[in-house]
Amino acid sequence: MSRLEVIGVEGIGEIGPGDDLAGVIAEATTAAGLGPVDGDVVVVTQKVVSKAEGRLVPIDPEDRRGHRAVVESEAVRVLRRRGDLVITETSHGFVCANAGVDLSNVDDGWAALLPVDPDRSARRLRDGLRARTGADVAVVISDTFGRAWRRGLTDVAIGCAGIGAVVDLRGTTDAYGRELAVTEVAVVDELAGAAELVMGKASGIPAAVVRGVEPAWLRRGEVRAEIVRPASEDLFR
Amino acid sequence: MSRLEVIGVEGIGEIGPGDDLAGVIAEATTAAGLGPVDGDVVVVTQKVVSKAEGRLVPIDPEDRRGHRAVVESEAVRVLRRRGDLVITETSHGFVCANAGVDLSNVDDGWAALLPVDPDRSARRLRDGLRARTGADVAVVISDTFGRAWRRGLTDVAIGCAGIGAVVDLRGTTDAYGRELAVTEVAVVDELAGAAELVMGKASGIPAAVVRGVEPAWLRRGEVRAEIVRPASEDLFR
Repeated sequence: MSRLEVIGVEGIGEIGPGDDLAGVIAEATTAAGLGPVDGDVVVVTQKVVSKAEGRLVPIDPEDRRGHRAVVESEAVRVLRRRGDLVITETSHGFVCANAGVDLSNVDDGWAALLPVDPDRSARRLRDGLRARTGADVAVVISDTFGRAWRRGLTDVAIGCAGIGAVVDLRGTTDAYGRELAVTEVAVVDELAGAAELVMGKASGIPAAVVRGVEPAWLRRGEVRAEIVRPASEDLFR
Repeated sequence: MSRLEVIGVEGIGEIGPGDDLAGVIAEATTAAGLGPVDGDVVVVTQKVVSKAEGRLVPIDPEDRRGHRAVVESEAVRVLRRRGDLVITETSHGFVCANAGVDLSNVDDGWAALLPVDPDRSARRLRDGLRARTGADVAVVISDTFGRAWRRGLTDVAIGCAGIGAVVDLRGTTDAYGRELAVTEVAVVDELAGAAELVMGKASGIPAAVVRGVEPAWLRRGEVRAEIVRPASEDLFR
């Protein structure tokens, strides 16, 4: 049977600069009886990764000009503005609001920036989890983005390790035996979204274990190389 | 513990115009020992909904001009073209490739169109499942769309019933007790993506049961009213 389990990892507690995030997650998953085991995908929110990596800048929450200056220093391009909403392109090539600079779930007076290289952050977490648990897991780092044509936010992957970001089903056949033209599925984005469903925004669960993922997807992978759409391919920038 | 199960429903078999889709799904979930039970979310792909509703048009797969004519008759607006790729706005307000017209997993010589009113299709399925199983389930109808700035496709919701499309966490507090400014999560899109992870494109699994969803999300909901972004709000059309 084709079955997936998505389990929120509780008990991770507060994360600060320099903390051993892999150690904390390994301890929390073990304490919860979750393993992890080989083939699990561990989804971790950007917020705790950025905090552990010290990607924090001081900010006065009342100072909108100061906040805007931080956003603009993190953006390589501003695509659109409407009121306080600034749609930006980040140095990673992500198109998102406010260059990913975030004030929620951060101590007052601080803003969290995106990790410098989220795929590298994911590889480090994967290595750290293997070193501490012996399990060969994949890691997805998630963040909450808007979409051009749909209301509501969803969590997507900003970095990954040990899993293909996009699984290419081109050349496989559909249920009628015909070759499928294009079915490149961004599975890491779907995993990030699935994890969000058990995290909740306000409940302080910054990681989830997804168990039962198709083993063929577990290969070397990168969000930057596979998902970030080069400006030359982009019809809407 | 915060836990979700996503289970592909096997044994649904071939669906054709006029088939009792709710009956077929109820039979398959029951045969698989899956219930359904109150509070489950049943995700069903657009393809089988369109087939059951007879949303099929004859098409010659070699006749690209004919295919394009079908796409243009389904689109209310063409946003961009590049080669064979046509990004369209549909009558529902969805922005997607080829107005949702699809040749894969359809008999040769036919193309499947989107349901006329996918939220209504979801309500009918929900009513049908309740009539046949006694269970009060939510229904999400999913389709595979591209994204403006990210490569790879993901499944999103085109219709829903018995669940809020967007869960508004504005006014709740983050883990620091501060009010969250904007966290409107498009949970039906995340559920559609999670279901896709157990369906696979080529494996002929057109439905999944998601068990363990937050009960507070199970209310009246509509993709059209909650997720479709009005052109007036749209910065990228």
